[in-house]
Amino acid sequence: MAMLAASRRLSCRLNTGTPTLLVGILQSAYGRSISTAFREEKDTFGPIRVPSDRLWGAQTQRSLQNFDIGGEREQMPEPIIRAFGILKKCAAKVNMEYGLDPHIGKAIIEAAQEVAEGKLNDHFPLVIWQTGSGTQSNMNANEVIANRAAEILGHKRGDKFVHPNDHVNRSQSSNDTFPTVMHIAAALEIDKILIPALSGLHSTLHGKSHEFQEIIKIGRTHTQDATPLTLGQEFGGYCTQVQYGIRRVLDTLPRLYQLAQGGTAVGTGLNTKKGFDVKIAAAVAEETELPFVTAENKFEALAAHDAFIETSGALNTVSASLMKIANDIRLLGSGPRCGLGELILPENEPGSSIMPGKVNPTQCEALTMVCAQVMGNHVAITIGGSNGHFELNVYKPLIASNLIRSVRLLGDASSSFEKNCVRGIQANCQRISKLLNESLMLVTSLNPKIGYDKAAAVAKKAHKEGTTLKDAALGLEVLTAQEFDELVVPEKMIGPSD
Amino acid sequence: MAMLAASRRLSCRLNTGTPTLLVGILQSAYGRSISTAFREEKDTFGPIRVPSDRLWGAQTQRSLQNFDIGGEREQMPEPIIRAFGILKKCAAKVNMEYGLDPHIGKAIIEAAQEVAEGKLNDHFPLVIWQTGSGTQSNMNANEVIANRAAEILGHKRGDKFVHPNDHVNRSQSSNDTFPTVMHIAAALEIDKILIPALSGLHSTLHGKSHEFQEIIKIGRTHTQDATPLTLGQEFGGYCTQVQYGIRRVLDTLPRLYQLAQGGTAVGTGLNTKKGFDVKIAAAVAEETELPFVTAENKFEALAAHDAFIETSGALNTVSASLMKIANDIRLLGSGPRCGLGELILPENEPGSSIMPGKVNPTQCEALTMVCAQVMGNHVAITIGGSNGHFELNVYKPLIASNLIRSVRLLGDASSSFEKNCVRGIQANCQRISKLLNESLMLVTSLNPKIGYDKAAAVAKKAHKEGTTLKDAALGLEVLTAQEFDELVVPEKMIGPSD
Amino acid sequence: MAMLAASRRLSCRLNTGTPTLLVGILQSAYGRSISTAFREEKDTFGPIRVPSDRLWGAQTQRSLQNFDIGGEREQMPEPIIRAFGILKKCAAKVNMEYGLDPHIGKAIIEAAQEVAEGKLNDHFPLVIWQTGSGTQSNMNANEVIANRAAEILGHKRGDKFVHPNDHVNRSQSSNDTFPTVMHIAAALEIDKILIPALSGLHSTLHGKSHEFQEIIKIGRTHTQDATPLTLGQEFGGYCTQVQYGIRRVLDTLPRLYQLAQGGTAVGTGLNTKKGFDVKIAAAVAEETELPFVTAENKFEALAAHDAFIETSGALNTVSASLMKIANDIRLLGSGPRCGLGELILPENEPGSSIMPGKVNPTQCEALTMVCAQVMGNHVAITIGGSNGHFELNVYKPLIASNLIRSVRLLGDASSSFEKNCVRGIQANCQRISKLLNESLMLVTSLNPKIGYDKAAAVAKKAHKEGTTLKDAALGLEVLTAQEFDELVVPEKMIGPSD
Amino acid sequence: MAMLAASRRLSCRLNTGTPTLLVGILQSAYGRSISTAFREEKDTFGPIRVPSDRLWGAQTQRSLQNFDIGGEREQMPEPIIRAFGILKKCAAKVNMEYGLDPHIGKAIIEAAQEVAEGKLNDHFPLVIWQTGSGTQSNMNANEVIANRAAEILGHKRGDKFVHPNDHVNRSQSSNDTFPTVMHIAAALEIDKILIPALSGLHSTLHGKSHEFQEIIKIGRTHTQDATPLTLGQEFGGYCTQVQYGIRRVLDTLPRLYQLAQGGTAVGTGLNTKKGFDVKIAAAVAEETELPFVTAENKFEALAAHDAFIETSGALNTVSASLMKIANDIRLLGSGPRCGLGELILPENEPGSSIMPGKVNPTQCEALTMVCAQVMGNHVAITIGGSNGHFELNVYKPLIASNLIRSVRLLGDASSSFEKNCVRGIQANCQRISKLLNESLMLVTSLNPKIGYDKAAAVAKKAHKEGTTLKDAALGLEVLTAQEFDELVVPEKMIGPSD
Repeated sequence: MAMLAASRRLSCRLNTGTPTLLVGILQSAYGRSISTAFREEKDTFGPIRVPSDRLWGAQTQRSLQNFDIGGEREQMPEPIIRAFGILKKCAAKVNMEYGLDPHIGKAIIEAAQEVAEGKLNDHFPLVIWQTGSGTQSNMNANEVIANRAAEILGHKRGDKFVHPNDHVNRSQSSNDTFPTVMHIAAALEIDKILIPALSGLHSTLHGKSHEFQEIIKIGRTHTQDATPLTLGQEFGGYCTQVQYGIRRVLDTLPRLYQLAQGGTAVGTGLNTKKGFDVKIAAAVAEETELPFVTAENKFEALAAHDAFIETSGALNTVSASLMKIANDIRLLGSGPRCGLGELILPENEPGSSIMPGKVNPTQCEALTMVCAQVMGNHVAITIGGSNGHFELNVYKPLIASNLIRSVRLLGDASSSFEKNCVRGIQANCQRISKLLNESLMLVTSLNPKIGYDKAAAVAKKAHKEGTTLKDAALGLEVLTAQEFDELVVPEKMIGPSD
Repeated sequence: MAMLAASRRLSCRLNTGTPTLLVGILQSAYGRSISTAFREEKDTFGPIRVPSDRLWGAQTQRSLQNFDIGGEREQMPEPIIRAFGILKKCAAKVNMEYGLDPHIGKAIIEAAQEVAEGKLNDHFPLVIWQTGSGTQSNMNANEVIANRAAEILGHKRGDKFVHPNDHVNRSQSSNDTFPTVMHIAAALEIDKILIPALSGLHSTLHGKSHEFQEIIKIGRTHTQDATPLTLGQEFGGYCTQVQYGIRRVLDTLPRLYQLAQGGTAVGTGLNTKKGFDVKIAAAVAEETELPFVTAENKFEALAAHDAFIETSGALNTVSASLMKIANDIRLLGSGPRCGLGELILPENEPGSSIMPGKVNPTQCEALTMVCAQVMGNHVAITIGGSNGHFELNVYKPLIASNLIRSVRLLGDASSSFEKNCVRGIQANCQRISKLLNESLMLVTSLNPKIGYDKAAAVAKKAHKEGTTLKDAALGLEVLTAQEFDELVVPEKMIGPSD
Repeated sequence: MAMLAASRRLSCRLNTGTPTLLVGILQSAYGRSISTAFREEKDTFGPIRVPSDRLWGAQTQRSLQNFDIGGEREQMPEPIIRAFGILKKCAAKVNMEYGLDPHIGKAIIEAAQEVAEGKLNDHFPLVIWQTGSGTQSNMNANEVIANRAAEILGHKRGDKFVHPNDHVNRSQSSNDTFPTVMHIAAALEIDKILIPALSGLHSTLHGKSHEFQEIIKIGRTHTQDATPLTLGQEFGGYCTQVQYGIRRVLDTLPRLYQLAQGGTAVGTGLNTKKGFDVKIAAAVAEETELPFVTAENKFEALAAHDAFIETSGALNTVSASLMKIANDIRLLGSGPRCGLGELILPENEPGSSIMPGKVNPTQCEALTMVCAQVMGNHVAITIGGSNGHFELNVYKPLIASNLIRSVRLLGDASSSFEKNCVRGIQANCQRISKLLNESLMLVTSLNPKIGYDKAAAVAKKAHKEGTTLKDAALGLEVLTAQEFDELVVPEKMIGPSD
Repeated sequence: MAMLAASRRLSCRLNTGTPTLLVGILQSAYGRSISTAFREEKDTFGPIRVPSDRLWGAQTQRSLQNFDIGGEREQMPEPIIRAFGILKKCAAKVNMEYGLDPHIGKAIIEAAQEVAEGKLNDHFPLVIWQTGSGTQSNMNANEVIANRAAEILGHKRGDKFVHPNDHVNRSQSSNDTFPTVMHIAAALEIDKILIPALSGLHSTLHGKSHEFQEIIKIGRTHTQDATPLTLGQEFGGYCTQVQYGIRRVLDTLPRLYQLAQGGTAVGTGLNTKKGFDVKIAAAVAEETELPFVTAENKFEALAAHDAFIETSGALNTVSASLMKIANDIRLLGSGPRCGLGELILPENEPGSSIMPGKVNPTQCEALTMVCAQVMGNHVAITIGGSNGHFELNVYKPLIASNLIRSVRLLGDASSSFEKNCVRGIQANCQRISKLLNESLMLVTSLNPKIGYDKAAAVAKKAHKEGTTLKDAALGLEVLTAQEFDELVVPEKMIGPSD
């Protein structure tokens, strides 16, 4: 990517007359060969120089120069680029049904397939922070595919034998293609990264819940000691949170599977033939093996991105769940001597060069940071989504990039957390048992036998003198050791009674 | 409510020895009779003075004194209070099946019914900003119902003939009652206020969409002139947004209908009998006529409020939709002379004392403010929801009050917007037609006849000289007036072609 | 306030022809006398019936009927109402300099003073969710003050002897008065509630930091045991956070002290005399004893509320600080047996009826809930503040009410936290000492004497066998008990060395 | 960077026994030479294979394998890496004063300088989503600098002649270095990117305000026609917003200039010598030419990042300002025929291939998207900042990366907006004049002459009949054409009267 930045700066300068000696400077700075040759591309604004070894055309080049915002890190996310490959391939297929020259159509399909596979990523230099319709990225896709298809057919780059607008973008507008690739990219990332990751985490938590089902431990409410439960029950709660989280995400997909394609400029479908919208959604569905359909209302699909706000809302909920779980795990694993110490977390890296046993809960930290990021992204998406005007929401690249980032981060962080933390968690049974038995909360079991007042007196004595309940009970002579042992049985406190 | 504040301050002072002459001062300040008498109530902390004319007891009184945060406006929302009435009534019913003295049970049911009907609102003085488990509001409900039930049975307040804990709170813990009333209150408010309001708005938008289906107007993308569509299509987009919004809210209800009741202190159900959880959910379902069920996992139901974050996410999406719609309407209605002026909004109040025709889009303003509030509430809920620890989330009153406020505000503002704005919107057909015909965008229709280059020349000439397309076309002699009129037909631009 | 709601509903119905028998129904529902009489008030829209016992006029009544959103809880915050009193009083003073009849001017001053003192609160029924300029609340103030001033002068309500627009609102527009009262109200609340509360909290934390300066305890990073520090140092960190928080808020005040008054409708000052803006800012400064000045740029002051977003940003930072502090305190106070247990928090109410020693950190919970609310309010303010159009931001009541709520809640919760929690915190010295001495972290001190490898071996042995470092060291025979005691001295680990 | 990802995956696999034939596959996939050689590095966890051509060591390699989250786009931002170079250089300087071997010290300085200049960026592969203390990035810096310094001194990578911990990290801990580089990086980016960009924008807006000072136009409140102002006044409002924005950012710098360095592990400064903290802050100040000082309270500086939340709050306010300005400009530039059309925005790229005059406000769109992102980042920072525990906030990489991204995006987008939009804005004087003269608002000027009632009648007639005010006035025969022209003078409406 450094090369792209170099070529960007270089071509910008050359377009305004920079001497070619800069090329040498840049080459040495970037440490590998950089294009020194340029070709001329044209659009309705006139000619502009483009690096010879790049497939993009005039409009992409203009955007590069007009939106120098944030540098390479801010480039349009790869899943969007790949989704453009999928869409343009499908569009060519359907356009061939509607009369597109099959010679050209097939070349477009081949070129688009390369985009879909990520092979031409280096030809997509534009950043998120461009026109809010994503027009420039749509033109980037059109230009790259047109030039590549032309090459496949033995023509030169820039000669427009395959035309970016007339052929590649046929029956399309940026206003319907960009929302379409947003939906394709988001749905694919959810399907391929997030759902498997959450399912894996759920499965491992479920296993832990079973593994820990016999371990009775002190409960904590208000961070204070409370009545007991099993460690398995505690993990069962986490398990349910993740299970519901998966459902929450899945519940939003029906609206994400609706594609805007066929709406063209304002949602009317001007310049398409009847049926184009249905056919292209079917083609995308076939290509991706996901149940995409054409949007019921194209006006809504261009002017608003409520479906993204909704899905982001589900991710926000999942983040809240995972933050809670990760917080619990790091606190339950705190120590080794001066914390709660009920869990032993896997040790993945040196926590400290001098202190053995200092296992920092780094996976919890990475995950909770990701959760905070997803919550912030959600606000950005909400603000962008609510600020559309008239027939077009022009916060599309913002909305798309935030959702795609949230999906990827949540997915990867969940996988990492599962693999590098949850899977290896062990219960510190000795510690758990010690805390449970020291606790004063078990006094509740004495009520039926000795009454509330005496039971309270036992607990108060134990608290005041720092002894066990049993010592206090025996000290007060309210029952015998045997009676105490028969009554105070945590196993009977972990469910409703018959 | 001012009286409550007065009695709060008064009793606080009296408890610490303030002379009774303050009573007189307070009376004059508050302008109506205030209780000058106090009775003594007790809890495990000892005795405390409570205003004689109030039904609450010692724990409520302590909370009043310990949490002097925000004043009356910050009291626990009424739907929560009413939901406590419903829950305590149902609990008494089920407890009677499990052995609660029917004499006492029936009195509790009667007293709880009064709470459910809002008749005892003045006896619920506590603010949102109390213990994060809502324990104090649960005790407030227990104390009020116990005292009222005792009265019904001919006993005195404070004598605990009906006991707040042993009778009213039997088989319950604050830790399961508060989440239960959160769910009851939210589901009821959604059912009774929000869904009807959104449905009404949807219906009216749908009607407008039909009413305006023949009115062709200029489209706008990037806030710039674009190809035409019908005003009906534009409103159809809004209509779909609201329709999906309703679905989004409804899709979250299955998880909101899950009740925590039966989990007691930490989710285990300690101190309940088997089956209690199922029976009480059934009783609440019967009482509310909503399909409540017992939560699948009580640990999740106490420790997390993901269901609220999820529902709040749906409200957040609805807010983004409504903000977009209201923004469009105020901009389309801008003018009367210097704006877009395509819509005529109903005039509900003087916009300006001097300028007739200045109709401020005040309903749009109220609605968009509400949307911003809901988005902010959503962040508060997310933060509270993600910060639970161990067996209990202690941001319950925050989460509940924000969601309930969002539901009410969105519902009321949607109703107000529907009634006082959308219903009365008229199309300014003259203006719409003028703008459409002046627009340069219709030149697109000339392409097939005269080719792209000449069409562009026509448009450029019209733009440069400020004339109509027709004048420019005739000036360039590229076609006749008759040809122009046959070709430039906006009606053909509002859908795909055959 | 219930009465107001009743009169609202009543008058709404009566205005559209409801039979008077409703009055009786309402009276019984609300349990106390309600006005059954109405007078007629007029505005440019014509006549409208207003409850006789209310001072408001036609425009207020219309707003009541057109904006039935959220009920009484959503009424414009009292500090805004009082600030209107201050402003209208000052305006009358300055207007008298510019020719307002002193007879009328003095009556306005007297009436406005009553508003400023909160005596006429019951005459301000409008909700936040009205026109986004706050026009209706400005008119509410004008109408109430005009009617009250007329009464003072012996005239009847509604006869407009003192005119709401011509006299009370003279030289003013809603567009400059509302931002002016926003600034007055916010600055006063910050000055009277927030800063004193934060200062009190700072002072108490500072005291605790001194009180605890000799208590050495284990440090915790990543929630894991780390090198020691003093409890005083730990509280010193909190103390600095609050100290900086106060500075942060104060740093935003210069822009909050700028008043929009004098900008009138669009910022130009049309209909004012030169110098009016400076004089009125001076009058407000004198009245409030705060250094208000006229805004440098009135266009900015009407069209944007960046000053509120900025101040809200400071409150957001303070909230993050307080959330951190409150979280630490509840975790350090967790227990009594199974938590960290280093702090003993004051016991303000029964934590549990059966378990002595269960002191729920309820003040921490109330405070952290408030912090989450302030963070949510901040997002609402940001969204409202960023969505202004042209010469007027129309999210004013939203922005004002959120900031004022944040200020009050943060102030009150800080005071409550200080008084009911921090002030009474005690160190559990026995527990602190036990944890410190059990910790493995002190092994670091052995490095210089026995080298890294042997020190690590000591720590590993202690960790593995669950013994003390000393036992392990003696077991490995790397040094004597006396040597160990001379080397392992936590007191030497709490600062840089010489 | 693709190479890094390849080497990451490769080395991960090789470490677990993947056959070397994968190397060939990866080479062909990545299209250029990839390291096939590995060397062994060690840490306290044991040996691990590291790509031979990379300078990093064992701990970096472990993090690469344990935190496979988000891919290359998520790498630690370059300003953080460069700030590590600055810090480690300064630390070596100060450590030499305290006894570090000058031979080694100078090599560290030379290597660190290369990091500071960005020359070794390819050796910093770690992502943001790692341990929340940033320990792994600190170790990455230590390892790279140690290996590079060793090379400079003629030693081999990995032989630890220069030791990452003992030499490069001497007197430091991750817990104080990471917050220190956060502050250095943020302050530098603000100083070098944001402030110049905002100043440039301010200057251009100021120029426009002067350029447009004579152009009187219609004002708009509630998006509705209002009294006039000059276009210069309107731009003056924007200018003030940006001017205050700069002040807001600058006001937060005093707390950002405080460096945590010297606090080491928990803030006590254990393992440093007295005075180290002051000296290193001085060295950083000298190196960066920014007024850094040592933090007053190191406990606060490690445990909280309130300074970042505060600065982010300032950026949030600036974003709200810029969103308002950009929204106004796109709406004022809407058209060309069917919008407001008062501004002519520069045409930077084809808006539409067919419609001349369609200038999409793409710079406004990029800027408003950036603003939404900054608002979202602010929420992420707030959440991360509020969730610290005890002696260390472990959301550091999240907080740092969001702030640095916000600074860069706001800076770049402001520059782009200034250069490609604001600088070239022209007033459409003809359109402005036409709208002003058609407006009904000027009727206000007739009040003094013909009275309110007749003036209102004139306005009503004009509104109803769609005529000019003058036509209506003459039609009603309330004054002559000459009188009208003398009275209706917008120039007199743009300021207070004498």
